[in-house]
Order: sequence, then C-alpha cells, then structure tokens
Amino acid sequence: MAPSKGTTGEAPAGTAATRDRLVAAGVELFRRQGLAATGIKQILEVADARFSSLYHAFPGGKDELAAVVVRTAGAAYQQHVEAAWDGARNPVAATRAIFEGAAAALEASGYADACPIATVALEVASTNEPLRLATAEVFEAWLAAARSRLAAAGLRRADARKLSLGIVTLLEGAFVLSRASRSAEAMRCAGETAAALVTAALGRSTRR
Amino acid sequence: MAPSKGTTGEAPAGTAATRDRLVAAGVELFRRQGLAATGIKQILEVADARFSSLYHAFPGGKDELAAVVVRTAGAAYQQHVEAAWDGARNPVAATRAIFEGAAAALEASGYADACPIATVALEVASTNEPLRLATAEVFEAWLAAARSRLAAAGLRRADARKLSLGIVTLLEGAFVLSRASRSAEAMRCAGETAAALVTAALGRSTRR
Repeated sequence: MAPSKGTTGEAPAGTAATRDRLVAAGVELFRRQGLAATGIKQILEVADARFSSLYHAFPGGKDELAAVVVRTAGAAYQQHVEAAWDGARNPVAATRAIFEGAAAALEASGYADACPIATVALEVASTNEPLRLATAEVFEAWLAAARSRLAAAGLRRADARKLSLGIVTLLEGAFVLSRASRSAEAMRCAGETAAALVTAALGRSTRR
Repeated sequence: MAPSKGTTGEAPAGTAATRDRLVAAGVELFRRQGLAATGIKQILEVADARFSSLYHAFPGGKDELAAVVVRTAGAAYQQHVEAAWDGARNPVAATRAIFEGAAAALEASGYADACPIATVALEVASTNEPLRLATAEVFEAWLAAARSRLAAAGLRRADARKLSLGIVTLLEGAFVLSRASRSAEAMRCAGETAAALVTAALGRSTRR
C-alpha cells in the first residue's frame, strides 16, 4: 500500500487533518500492540499519510508522535471516564459504570480496547525517560480528577488520595488480566471491589 | 561485542547451561523493555551465546524462547510469592509481605524489577496467540495458588476466587503505576487495600 500514497488524495503535508490521522493511528496501534512493535510504515499506512507528513508534523519522529499519542489518548480516556462519572447518580454507581464500561469495551473489541497507555507505559518505564514522563503525567491527571470528585463527594483528602489510587490500580491491573485471559471476569470483579471500597470510604466520611 | 562471541569460552551449543543463560537474558530484557524492543542480538549479547546456540535450543526462534521465558519467569515469581506466603504468620501478614516485597524490589532496582510478564502480556494480547496463552496460563497458575491458600485459610470457594483475583489485579495495576511514576506509593497503597480485603473476607468466613 505505501508506495501508492503519493498519488492518493491525501491532504497537504502538515495540515491539522493529517496530524490528527497520525495521532489516531498511533492511539489505535499502541493500544493494540505497543510502541516497539509499531513501525513508522504501519503508522503511515493506517493514517493514510506520507513519510514527509509525519516529519513535518513531528520533527522528532516516532518518539515525538508517541508522546503526543500518550497525552491525547490519556486525555480522551479521562474525558470518557469523567462523563461516565458525571452521568451517574452517586460515586458508587459512577465507579460501577466505569468498570462495566471497560468490561463491555473489552468484550466488544475482542479484548483490544483497553487502557490506551498501559502497554507503552510498561515498555518505556526503564528505557525512555521523556515517554515515561508522558505516561506518568497521564496517570497523575487521572488520579487528580478522581481525587477531586471523591473529595467533592465528602471524602477526607487522605482518603480521597488512597481511594483514587486504589480505583486506578484496580482498573489497570484488570486490563492486564482481562486482556491476557480474554475474559472480562477480572474487570467486573475489580469493579465490585472498587465499588465496595468507595462505599466503605463514604461510610467512614459520613460517620465523622 | 557480538563478533567476538565465536572466540569466547562459551559452553558448547545446546547445553543446558547455554539454554539457561538465554532464558535468563530473556527474563531480564523482557521485564525491563518488553518483547518487541528486545532483539535477538541483544539476547545473545546478554546471554554470552552464539546465534547457533539460540536456534539449537529454540528451533522456533524468538517466539519459542519467549514462551519459555514467560513460563519460567511466571513460575519463579510464583515460587517467590508462595515462599513469602508460607513464611508469614497469617494470610493478612502474607499479603502485606508480598506487596512490601514488590515495593522494595521496585525501589532497589530503579523501578525495573516488576512483574516479569506484564509487559509481554499487554504487547501480545491482540497479536500473538501462542504467547498470549503462555501469559494467561501464568496468571491462572498464580490465581489457583492464591485460591488454594485462601481456601486453606477458611474462605468459601467463591470468596477465595474473587479475593485471589482482587489481589493479583491490585499487584499488576500497582506495577504499572509504580513503574510509570517511579514511586512505590501505588504498590504500598495496593498492599494496604489487599490486606484490608483479606481481613474482611476472613471476618466474613469466621462469622459463618
């Protein structure tokens, strides 16, 4: 496919549309197979873009694209989770909705639609400091969002911090187990555990 | 380094010692950087082995080695965790010891010594079915070991299954967060949560 790219109707190099297609291709490929297994050629094929477009949009090449992909995918997943939270009638129902949504997405996608950054996070943690920082920033943003919503629900600051860590930890661990086993049982079980933790923490905060 | 391999004192191709060095190199490299980022050449360098040794020991090449690495590393970590469990005075102390051990290993290794198979598990889940099955078997063996110990401690079968899933999920999620953030906070917090879950489940089983 690649050699025909120059003759397709691709938008001019460097346009926002091409950049968006490159990022979207990165999100999809990194989520399914990780960073190292994804070659530049495959990104260009999925994005229907030319080599020159990639280096025009991302002069730093694959690593620069990857950092944008991690931050973009992390922000999109956070927005999705925050919408689920805001649409639920209380924090316990919100927690259940987030894990049930993750379980349903895993099942509907053949266990490919999972955490958009976990594979990259594990691949780069010991080998690529700029990309590790990008994954750390995403997790910290998720934790901050969870903390602020839990604090708004009446939890003490220390409780909100621990509980947000517990929820994100359960979600990430369940993505690993559910993808490996091709079963949403770990994700649904993690959702029950997370909901019980939220219920208990709200009970403690009410009894103060 | 590689060109000099043929003249070093490497043991004859195909011996058990060479095979062990290849597997040990795979364990270390896959844990730090994953499967796709690890080239055959790097495995041979770390193992101080020749190309011919690799294909003598593993005719299926990198994928065959990777499956053995996943199963070997998974069994070794299970043995390590079971020893910690058996050395503790009760299931709650055992749970604390496992997570504290993981936190200490992360800190001592600059956040490299983590789950030996999680990176590979996420990389291959949607792309390499034989390797996915190897990672799924490892997680299932860990869960079975946890279930049998929790059942021996008096938990009902259904409770033991859910709790073992909860513990392994928290451990795996905390490896992701702790490696990304270069902080053992997520692992220690997961340990507190896991210990609380074990305490609560034992309380329920005692009240029956």
